[in-house]
Amino acid sequence: MKNNDKQNQMANAIRFLSIDAIEKANSGHPGLPMGAADIATVLYTKFLAHDPKKPNWPNRDRFVLSAGHGSMLLYSVMYLSGYEDVTIDEIKNFRQLGAKTAGHPEYRHINGIETTTGPLGQGIANAVGMALGERIMNARWGDLIDHYTYVLAGDGCLMEGISQEAIAFAGHMKLNKLIVFWDNNQISIDGAITISDNTDQCARFEACQWNTIKVDGHDQDAIAKAIEKAKTSDKPTLISCRTTIGFGSPHKAGTNKAHGSPLGKEEVAETRKSLGWESEPFVIPAEILDNWRLAGLNAAKKRQEWDKKLEALDPQKRAEFERLMRGDLPGNFDSVINDYKKKLAADQPKVATRVASQMALEVINGAVDETIGGSADLTGSNNTKTSQTNDITPEDFSGRYIHYGIREHAMAAIMNGLSLYGGIIPYSGTFLCFSDYARPAMRLSSLMGIRVIYVMTHDSIGLGEDGPTHQPVEHLASLRAIPNHLVFRPADVVETAECWQLALKSKTTPSTLALTRQGLPTLRKNYDEDNLCALGAYELMTASDEAKVTIFASGSEVEIAVKARNELENKGIPTRVVSVPCFELFEHQVESYQTALIGTAPVKIAIEAAIRQGWDRFIGRDGVFIGMHSFGASGPIDALYKHFGITPEAVVAAAEAKL
Amino acid sequence: MKNNDKQNQMANAIRFLSIDAIEKANSGHPGLPMGAADIATVLYTKFLAHDPKKPNWPNRDRFVLSAGHGSMLLYSVMYLSGYEDVTIDEIKNFRQLGAKTAGHPEYRHINGIETTTGPLGQGIANAVGMALGERIMNARWGDLIDHYTYVLAGDGCLMEGISQEAIAFAGHMKLNKLIVFWDNNQISIDGAITISDNTDQCARFEACQWNTIKVDGHDQDAIAKAIEKAKTSDKPTLISCRTTIGFGSPHKAGTNKAHGSPLGKEEVAETRKSLGWESEPFVIPAEILDNWRLAGLNAAKKRQEWDKKLEALDPQKRAEFERLMRGDLPGNFDSVINDYKKKLAADQPKVATRVASQMALEVINGAVDETIGGSADLTGSNNTKTSQTNDITPEDFSGRYIHYGIREHAMAAIMNGLSLYGGIIPYSGTFLCFSDYARPAMRLSSLMGIRVIYVMTHDSIGLGEDGPTHQPVEHLASLRAIPNHLVFRPADVVETAECWQLALKSKTTPSTLALTRQGLPTLRKNYDEDNLCALGAYELMTASDEAKVTIFASGSEVEIAVKARNELENKGIPTRVVSVPCFELFEHQVESYQTALIGTAPVKIAIEAAIRQGWDRFIGRDGVFIGMHSFGASGPIDALYKHFGITPEAVVAAAEAKL
Repeated sequence: MKNNDKQNQMANAIRFLSIDAIEKANSGHPGLPMGAADIATVLYTKFLAHDPKKPNWPNRDRFVLSAGHGSMLLYSVMYLSGYEDVTIDEIKNFRQLGAKTAGHPEYRHINGIETTTGPLGQGIANAVGMALGERIMNARWGDLIDHYTYVLAGDGCLMEGISQEAIAFAGHMKLNKLIVFWDNNQISIDGAITISDNTDQCARFEACQWNTIKVDGHDQDAIAKAIEKAKTSDKPTLISCRTTIGFGSPHKAGTNKAHGSPLGKEEVAETRKSLGWESEPFVIPAEILDNWRLAGLNAAKKRQEWDKKLEALDPQKRAEFERLMRGDLPGNFDSVINDYKKKLAADQPKVATRVASQMALEVINGAVDETIGGSADLTGSNNTKTSQTNDITPEDFSGRYIHYGIREHAMAAIMNGLSLYGGIIPYSGTFLCFSDYARPAMRLSSLMGIRVIYVMTHDSIGLGEDGPTHQPVEHLASLRAIPNHLVFRPADVVETAECWQLALKSKTTPSTLALTRQGLPTLRKNYDEDNLCALGAYELMTASDEAKVTIFASGSEVEIAVKARNELENKGIPTRVVSVPCFELFEHQVESYQTALIGTAPVKIAIEAAIRQGWDRFIGRDGVFIGMHSFGASGPIDALYKHFGITPEAVVAAAEAKL
Repeated sequence: MKNNDKQNQMANAIRFLSIDAIEKANSGHPGLPMGAADIATVLYTKFLAHDPKKPNWPNRDRFVLSAGHGSMLLYSVMYLSGYEDVTIDEIKNFRQLGAKTAGHPEYRHINGIETTTGPLGQGIANAVGMALGERIMNARWGDLIDHYTYVLAGDGCLMEGISQEAIAFAGHMKLNKLIVFWDNNQISIDGAITISDNTDQCARFEACQWNTIKVDGHDQDAIAKAIEKAKTSDKPTLISCRTTIGFGSPHKAGTNKAHGSPLGKEEVAETRKSLGWESEPFVIPAEILDNWRLAGLNAAKKRQEWDKKLEALDPQKRAEFERLMRGDLPGNFDSVINDYKKKLAADQPKVATRVASQMALEVINGAVDETIGGSADLTGSNNTKTSQTNDITPEDFSGRYIHYGIREHAMAAIMNGLSLYGGIIPYSGTFLCFSDYARPAMRLSSLMGIRVIYVMTHDSIGLGEDGPTHQPVEHLASLRAIPNHLVFRPADVVETAECWQLALKSKTTPSTLALTRQGLPTLRKNYDEDNLCALGAYELMTASDEAKVTIFASGSEVEIAVKARNELENKGIPTRVVSVPCFELFEHQVESYQTALIGTAPVKIAIEAAIRQGWDRFIGRDGVFIGMHSFGASGPIDALYKHFGITPEAVVAAAEAKL
């Protein structure tokens, strides 16, 4: 043993809380908490700036358990440190329905969990976002914000592609206050890592401009020295901690048998013997618990000092800081948007909605300092940069624009980290088709319920010649399918402004704005103080008489709906048009509004240059759908819309055929 | 200039075909073809084993343009080499609707395009699959299959996370016949690469066990030497080719202005001057074209020699080889499946469908040698290994099982490469929830129309304690949204066998099998020679009288439907049950079958432990949906189904409330 008795006891407290909780739940992953207990002990008792009684103070160090399956490690150290949400009863209730101690760590379940982890590789990318957030806030607030971000990542996290995107970005940005512990246990579920990988991880991180350190992951003093050394680097640091998975289990340690199942009654007993742990399940000897709690109290001193700093701030600055931490928008936000809408009503510009988005952002970024923009190397196409957003660079974090590189997945996960960090509203873009690359992180934005705004341009076959690899057809449906995710598809410059307003005001729901490459006329002719897009769907044009046809459409196809409606009206067929910028918000309306809006016109038609899935909600099984029934094709936009039959003429013909 | 005149002229032929086609289309990406023309010239005229007149001969070298936006490079070299599908008229028709020369290279558009590229990083991972396919076929067929796989990748491909997964896998597997040219032009769309990246790519590849070589990408002799050297390595090789994007353009070369837009009339004229190219657009001087065509004819000699080898094979072996190349299944395949279904009818096992899948695979792998299984490090959970599938290792490619590592995205793209390679039917698994990680590659399976089988287990909240990060709720809908993708969700062991049969027989459509973690009873009590799942949906249980209720369900919820139906029948309410294993195949049925199956029962109920989206097709807007309306939760399975109200009791109550 490299550690002294106290060090071992502290770590064993983590091990046995984990072992016993997993045993009781008859479900869970003991291997990681047992293997990484020494690392967690060093970090939590000697380094982490945290306050168990006030887990959310803004200048705390962040700790992300990227290997989320090892959730009992986190619950154990939180219980031992004195976090109030993690009682011994919660530990005993691990993985039961309604427990705060869910199978994987979930944001908002426990005050002090920084992010939801489990899908591998996400946590390390979230942490890169947090470490970036720290630098951005430091540039704005000086030493009020100045701390470290720590990560515990497993082999799985490092094998996932997102980790490469995240570490290359972090190395490029010189995020030297980011310290990653690699739980280097050389085991994955299928067996030894060497059956699927021979990567020299330290060399790989060094190639990405990281500092690396190798230590014995069961030598607490060595771990402490490595952390001290990491703090002197001008680069982010990977600490490779060689550990034994399931450390202490006589028959399962060092094998994949320790990974994902309870050890079993007998093996638990033998592990108690081998580690000299005599306590009953869920009982931590008083002296050990005292040592842990004392460490928690000591760590809290930093928070107390920081409170004084905050109190010393100019009252107005302090109010502003506190507003940011609450995630509230500036008080004049709505009036700024309304002034802008008035101007649009006067100007009636014909622009692509991606350009309309940039116009809205120009107004928003002028009024809301906390927006931080970006793009996955499509800045000019996504129209995400405005006059206020200078580049954020490794030398200067005072800007407001991030070049994420060609890294859609990490971009989304880094935005999650920025949003979780606090004081920042991240938005960034790629092509809608490539939302697929970002999808696992977009799902987590939704599951965590955080404000992240995805600017997804080139939203249909309307992008033209790039062809089916770049033309989304299923993406609107597949994003609408994600719970707690607002998918906006505005039809013109006014709706685009309204959708941005809604996205910014949705503090607990991420948003995707699907935007066109092609120009669109202003359809909302008159200024309306109400945000009509907030209804999800609304009547854009009435019928001249009792409607025989209702046409529902979103985005660029609303223009087609309007043309078809006018033609049908000319033919004496009363026709109304319903614009549907957001399915999800429509579902939030009262039943009576929904029923009335869908209406009773005998012919219901939906138009969207995408697949039908989801539209039956509006038009029923017998409704007519004008849209895509296959992948797209390469060609100029007009040829494509004609080829796929998405034209006013096709709508008119379909209506007449049905009447 | 480092090259002689002939070398320059050969490369300039590529450059000007590309420039002029893009100019005429007024759309496209000239920068890459201009920058990589020297690389392509060396490869196509000196190394590539190919036959322009017979592009699909099995032992050809493969070339993958991973940076698919540079499609004109590929079309140009194919035209110059003499590929019959690429006429000068096709070049002139670049990016027009109906042209073979689509915006990005599309598989099946042109005989000789190996894979569809454009979404960055996919091509390099496809190529890893092809290089692996080559080794697998070599292990089976000796020197009948023995060739190289070449890739041209850009900075974008290398920044995407999937590239890390793919190169780590390739390095691990020692795929030394894989040679990647990196078009190292230091430019991306937003500007210099250094605004988003400082990765030492060669060091990164070396960390992943690759050989690396650096050359001047405009020195054809140096490139040739590098290829020769790469061929002597026992590792895959990255050749870093330092190039100038838009080479030859006086004002745009070396900048992002050359990347994604036509050069413009004036700049094209100046580029002609600067490179000394005097020909009219689309005219290649006879001597230069002759040199290119001669190189194509020379390369074809290898094909002629190989034909003799094939002819010399034992006739039975040759017939087998040709069957594999056609992608046909063995002649006895259907009878093997039917025998197995008879056995099931006798045994009536109660197993999880993931276990049923393994049972089916045990039968299939015994009868079909060309299936190659695998898992993204969840072998024991995905149940993808059978008695016939020994591991494929870097030392021995004669096995049939691939440990892809924790790399879902590359796994899917590598399977695309294996399927495209020919003679192999790849299947592999992960959890359904993590299909999100693989989605961009799954979309390409569908767009290309190739046989890849995704085994996605743990397909609902039924997985229990791992909680919402691991519980799919939107994934069935979002996968069903992808055109040309069969999503199967079998209800029992018989349906699982039938779905596997259908997946294997679908030569031009990929399949996903969504499978349970939890045990399910056999519901199909009697042997039926017909594959009922081929109907997509079918009546599993009739009503005792004219149906008042029809219950539609898929997968694990069919058991709930059956229980509810029996209870309703007990209460005197005639109720039928429709099992819906595959939405897509149901849509392929004649209208009359669809209408009759949906039927006229006044109450229609659908049950699926997932979101409603898509089910309105069956139950209409007024139907009852019993399923998920949010993300899941962590807890034991029974508690979860009860908590979310997915029970026979809830179905019965809903039916009674509606009647």
